[in-house]
Amino acid sequence: MSRRKQIYEGKAKILYEGPEPGTLVQYFKDDATAFNAQKKATLDGKGVLNNRISEFIMLRLMEIGIPTHFIRRLNMREQLIKKVEIVPLEVICRNVAAGTMSVRLGIEEGEKLPRSIVEFCLKRDDLGDPLVAEEHVYAFGWATQGEMDEIIAMTLRINDYLQGMFAGIGIRLVDFKIEFGRLAHPDGLGDHMIILADEISPDSCRLWDMETNKKLDKDRFRRDLGEVTEAYTEVATRLGILKPNPSTANISVISSND
Amino acid sequence: MSRRKQIYEGKAKILYEGPEPGTLVQYFKDDATAFNAQKKATLDGKGVLNNRISEFIMLRLMEIGIPTHFIRRLNMREQLIKKVEIVPLEVICRNVAAGTMSVRLGIEEGEKLPRSIVEFCLKRDDLGDPLVAEEHVYAFGWATQGEMDEIIAMTLRINDYLQGMFAGIGIRLVDFKIEFGRLAHPDGLGDHMIILADEISPDSCRLWDMETNKKLDKDRFRRDLGEVTEAYTEVATRLGILKPNPSTANISVISSND
Ligand SMILES: Nc1ncnc2c1ncn2[C@@H]1O[C@H](COP(=O)(O)OP(=O)(O)O)[C@@H](O)[C@H]1O
Ligand SMILES: Nc1ncnc2c1ncn2[C@@H]1O[C@H](COP(=O)(O)OP(=O)(O)O)[C@@H](O)[C@H]1O
Ligand SMILES: [Mg+2]
Ligand SMILES: [Mg+2]
Repeated sequence: MSRRKQIYEGKAKILYEGPEPGTLVQYFKDDATAFNAQKKATLDGKGVLNNRISEFIMLRLMEIGIPTHFIRRLNMREQLIKKVEIVPLEVICRNVAAGTMSVRLGIEEGEKLPRSIVEFCLKRDDLGDPLVAEEHVYAFGWATQGEMDEIIAMTLRINDYLQGMFAGIGIRLVDFKIEFGRLAHPDGLGDHMIILADEISPDSCRLWDMETNKKLDKDRFRRDLGEVTEAYTEVATRLGILKPNPSTANISVISSND
Repeated sequence: MSRRKQIYEGKAKILYEGPEPGTLVQYFKDDATAFNAQKKATLDGKGVLNNRISEFIMLRLMEIGIPTHFIRRLNMREQLIKKVEIVPLEVICRNVAAGTMSVRLGIEEGEKLPRSIVEFCLKRDDLGDPLVAEEHVYAFGWATQGEMDEIIAMTLRINDYLQGMFAGIGIRLVDFKIEFGRLAHPDGLGDHMIILADEISPDSCRLWDMETNKKLDKDRFRRDLGEVTEAYTEVATRLGILKPNPSTANISVISSND
């Protein structure tokens, strides 16, 4: 552990140099932040849960042909990933109005959108990750039109798949945030390839129980609703990652390769 | 005057029913507002200047084939216009970073943009006219893709023409805001036509003297720089609308049809 070089420490994860060139180790912290890091806390076990949930989802997406940075999980808090050059955009896909969209456009939270909407925010913490239009992306060269076409098409496929996956376990996928990165083509020739990076977890999704509308995501932290890791555990349990264990909040991981 | 029915009173203009069906009278007030009407003032003569400047620019744009709502000026403060259904978007075209773009994207005011950028804000005072992407426009049906294509193409032509026109009188067109509306086709058949509406004036443009960078626009009011109507008068004088009259701030209109 101590030999590894730390590349970057973010709000929820740390990146270390990986064992082979072109790889990184992504370490999931228990730290939670909201409102551009103005609100901070440590949530015991969150990192473990997100590592498992993100692994689970990335593997499922790879099965349907979405290229991702995920290589394999290393342990409870770490996964080996392909190093990419992150496209500096937070890609948000929304099915139901919530959060900043509700506030900005005056649409009541919970209202079904006329169709799924893909938004882009510039990944700049110092500016509060401002919403941008594709127009800005092209004018400032944050991504090319070809890259954006790939990003939008992949985002809509991911949305379709994840809406189905969560619906199957009684959860409404209200919205989610993903990041993409550029990976040099394996043959070393031609253009970079766009792949899904970062994580997909209750930190980066809005997940509402379909029956009760109970929030099972980071809004429990943002809005002081309590029982944050309990909600993440519920998601992991419904996904079949954790053994159902109603009597305790302990995390019992179903896995043979731990 | 008193017989006319008032249709709408906005922040800077009043709309009255026009003399014929499908027409309106647009009355230019001296009222100035900024920051979503949190800041207010009356600027003596501003309405007269904007009526003349907007008339001048609309006529020039019609000469190059841009369809507009302008029919004719009626008097010092009023113009006859075609009534349209306003597309609920403020269309902003920027050549140089300034104002909200500088703040949101962290680009120093005055920095030339890599290319002209067309932005859209939802026309909703109660929400502070939030920036939206084309994605939102289509998802919520505020305009169709065909309408947006026309709006963008016209906006870029207007930008080219106005940049040239202002450069000719030593003024840099930093950015401007325009509105478009839907007009039923003259033959009563088929689709609505998109035409330029509202106004183009120092209230809706950023105009900087090319030599001194002196602001000749509404930022003088927003930022308490003083001499607001003097700056508008300077613009009108350079455009040849007003007789140069260095000794007084009186407005001497060059016109035969007053
Ligand atoms: N495959 C990858 N290669 C390089 N960087 C990545 C990869 N996946 C995610 N990242 C970046 O690693 C960081 C993850 O840490 P996080 O705590 O989420 O940081 P942040 O506070 O910047 O969101 C993010 O900045 C993300 O863009
Ligand atoms: N040709 C037109 N037909 C109908 N409405 C128009 C036309 N041109 C402009 N408008 C609308 O008239 C109003 C002009 O008044 P203004 O003081 O600018 O109002 P606001 O405070 O809404 O910006 C605007 O709401 C504008 O959208
Ligand atoms: Mg992050
Ligand atoms: Mg207006």
